[in-house]
Amino acid sequence: VASSRIDDIPPDVRHEARRALLNFIGCAVGAAAEDAVSIAIRVLMPFAGGGTAAILGRKERLDPLRAALVNGISSHVLDFDDTTPKTYSHTTSPVAAALFGYAGASEVSGIDLLHAFILGFEVASRVGNAISSAHYDAGWHITSTTGVIGAAAAIGRLRGLDDQRMMHAIGLAATQASGFREMFGSMAKSFHPGRAAESGYLAVLLAEQGFTSGRMSLDGPRGYFNVLSAKHDASCISRGLGVDFNLRKNTYKPFACGLVIHPTIDACSQIRLEPEFSIEGVEAISLLVSPIVLDLCNKKNISSGLESKFSVYHAAAIGLVCGKGGLAEFTDEAVHDPVIKGIRERVSAASDPLLRNEAVMVKVSCRDGRVFQKQVNHPVGSLEHPLSDKTLEEKVRELALPYLTTHGVNGIVDMIWDIEAVQASALVRAATSLR
Amino acid sequence: VASSRIDDIPPDVRHEARRALLNFIGCAVGAAAEDAVSIAIRVLMPFAGGGTAAILGRKERLDPLRAALVNGISSHVLDFDDTTPKTYSHTTSPVAAALFGYAGASEVSGIDLLHAFILGFEVASRVGNAISSAHYDAGWHITSTTGVIGAAAAIGRLRGLDDQRMMHAIGLAATQASGFREMFGSMAKSFHPGRAAESGYLAVLLAEQGFTSGRMSLDGPRGYFNVLSAKHDASCISRGLGVDFNLRKNTYKPFACGLVIHPTIDACSQIRLEPEFSIEGVEAISLLVSPIVLDLCNKKNISSGLESKFSVYHAAAIGLVCGKGGLAEFTDEAVHDPVIKGIRERVSAASDPLLRNEAVMVKVSCRDGRVFQKQVNHPVGSLEHPLSDKTLEEKVRELALPYLTTHGVNGIVDMIWDIEAVQASALVRAATSLR
Repeated sequence: VASSRIDDIPPDVRHEARRALLNFIGCAVGAAAEDAVSIAIRVLMPFAGGGTAAILGRKERLDPLRAALVNGISSHVLDFDDTTPKTYSHTTSPVAAALFGYAGASEVSGIDLLHAFILGFEVASRVGNAISSAHYDAGWHITSTTGVIGAAAAIGRLRGLDDQRMMHAIGLAATQASGFREMFGSMAKSFHPGRAAESGYLAVLLAEQGFTSGRMSLDGPRGYFNVLSAKHDASCISRGLGVDFNLRKNTYKPFACGLVIHPTIDACSQIRLEPEFSIEGVEAISLLVSPIVLDLCNKKNISSGLESKFSVYHAAAIGLVCGKGGLAEFTDEAVHDPVIKGIRERVSAASDPLLRNEAVMVKVSCRDGRVFQKQVNHPVGSLEHPLSDKTLEEKVRELALPYLTTHGVNGIVDMIWDIEAVQASALVRAATSLR
Repeated sequence: VASSRIDDIPPDVRHEARRALLNFIGCAVGAAAEDAVSIAIRVLMPFAGGGTAAILGRKERLDPLRAALVNGISSHVLDFDDTTPKTYSHTTSPVAAALFGYAGASEVSGIDLLHAFILGFEVASRVGNAISSAHYDAGWHITSTTGVIGAAAAIGRLRGLDDQRMMHAIGLAATQASGFREMFGSMAKSFHPGRAAESGYLAVLLAEQGFTSGRMSLDGPRGYFNVLSAKHDASCISRGLGVDFNLRKNTYKPFACGLVIHPTIDACSQIRLEPEFSIEGVEAISLLVSPIVLDLCNKKNISSGLESKFSVYHAAAIGLVCGKGGLAEFTDEAVHDPVIKGIRERVSAASDPLLRNEAVMVKVSCRDGRVFQKQVNHPVGSLEHPLSDKTLEEKVRELALPYLTTHGVNGIVDMIWDIEAVQASALVRAATSLR
């Protein structure tokens, strides 16, 4: 991390990093008015003094450590941020939250921020690979437990730490790793990457001034690997370093809900586009899904937007009615919409253990006897069928436009694709150009 | 915690709490000039704005959350704070650090602070009992992992949280639990209770404003107990609640070094007081100790004060030469002192598996043929042989006098014994009355 050169990062990895940062900013800005974000700012404001750091999507300022914390909450609270399917980690949130906390208060070139992000993402991912899947299976929220180390690597790189201080920064970050999955479904879930961003950032500032950690923080007998995971493979840290980049295994959600019901929305959205199809004639919808879908998302009688994110029945309905699954399709209003509700009540689901998690078979029967069928094996947004840059842009525009000026949103999109040539502070300004 | 009444706390428990707080303040003030403390303040000062909270033993001010962090570092960095032998937890540090961060910026009555401390200590201890010894054995630093929950309980009580918000505060604290033992021997060890104090405190401020955690944070399937410990006994949380208080099981160190070499210092100090004994005539010292002593403290050739804290040979030497083991006896100067060094080189040690950890047999042979023997079964400072209030006062005076005015130190001692009748802010003022 201390000696990496941006010229050694392959172009496709740099492009994937731009995509991850674009998606991150969209998610953070789109959540700017969420309760979790507003409460955190309200709590921290009295301690901000003359707050120097901008917060994505907000007018307030905090110090950069606490801006990092809030950016972490906002970028994760919608469950709309990126995912590395192999580990279930949402790695960008804690790493980029720290970087944008830093860039909210200090001049940083876009290319340095991009480079630091790629390194932080890679460090967190490799630590995650080393402890997967035992660590997550035990109940740890891998996003924050590895993200804190990634945030330290990223900020440590920006601050130009030497090898020794980087080692101490990573140790001080590792020993702050925290966050368990019992918090899922509460605001605390999004607090995890926020606190991870702040803790990793703080670790760097301490190490920079000579604060020390143990020397075997990850692989010592009572270190991170042994204490936080029943099994680990330390070779994941260094194998293919500088050649294999985990950003290539990162995915972006097109739909604002649990990943396992994405195939259903995708398949139903495709049926909706068939020329002969009309929503009025629908008699019954039957789904054949992987067993995990009914384990996690078998909620039929739902009354809130939050519940709808875990309903495969609602997923089918909005696919057929709306052809998309953005934030608006998972609100209380959408749940009570009579057309969506009417379709949702006609959906039945069965599971087949032979079906992969990412596969679904949808059959729509109409009153006139016509039948529409669609099988999806890899939904849009999966590694095999990634979101196009254009679709990602559209997602970010839809997230950000309720809060930012059109000029600001255009600025974000333009600057991200050209990040090597701009200042990160200009990007932060665009992401705080409130309506 | 939310409904406890101070009148229901037995007098002996209240007195033990006063002793714990006195020892805490002494340790924090006595470490005010340590590198770990100075670095943390230097890092956080640029973010302090108009810092409102006093820091024990220092002239700077931070916000109360960060003052809590620094108080946690200072109170633990000398390894001179209190210990609950059953769990190896130094519980006062994180709990009182949060309370004194709070009291450094806000008016709190001494009786409310005392009450909140007793509750916070009890909560942390009961959580620790529930997960001991599997949790510590796995490599977790139990002081911080349980202390964060105790800090939340204590601050939550001061802020008057109702049951619901207290539940969320405890959940938000639990999911921040962190710190592993690979950090022992580095500054990060003392950072653990500091961060725990701050995290528990922050958890309360968030919960107070409506931030939510999961509802089964401790005993849910992916909650604290299951994720952070291979075994647990949840009945430890409620058994004997309001009757059995863990403060009764708390101990205070008379010597500024690892607990396992305390018996040796005690025995040697007693030999030194025998009328016939003279250090000049000593030919050889042989120790018979429990095996754990040689596991942890078998360092004979030492060159630094830090190493000397883990040398049973040095322990014997300072006992015979100085008759005490304060900070001064574990400095580089003491290690290189020719008299201490000369005696240290004459010490040999053997272990006997039948000897309890707290026992030692010391035999000193003199050139003139005389032999002095002493067996200690429970050293001074143990549960069976607790430090007297007067000895505790002397310890605190010795720790604080290099930094505070005599008037300030006298004020601390007087006010602690009368804490129910004073304002905590007066105590903080005394603990910041720098020379």
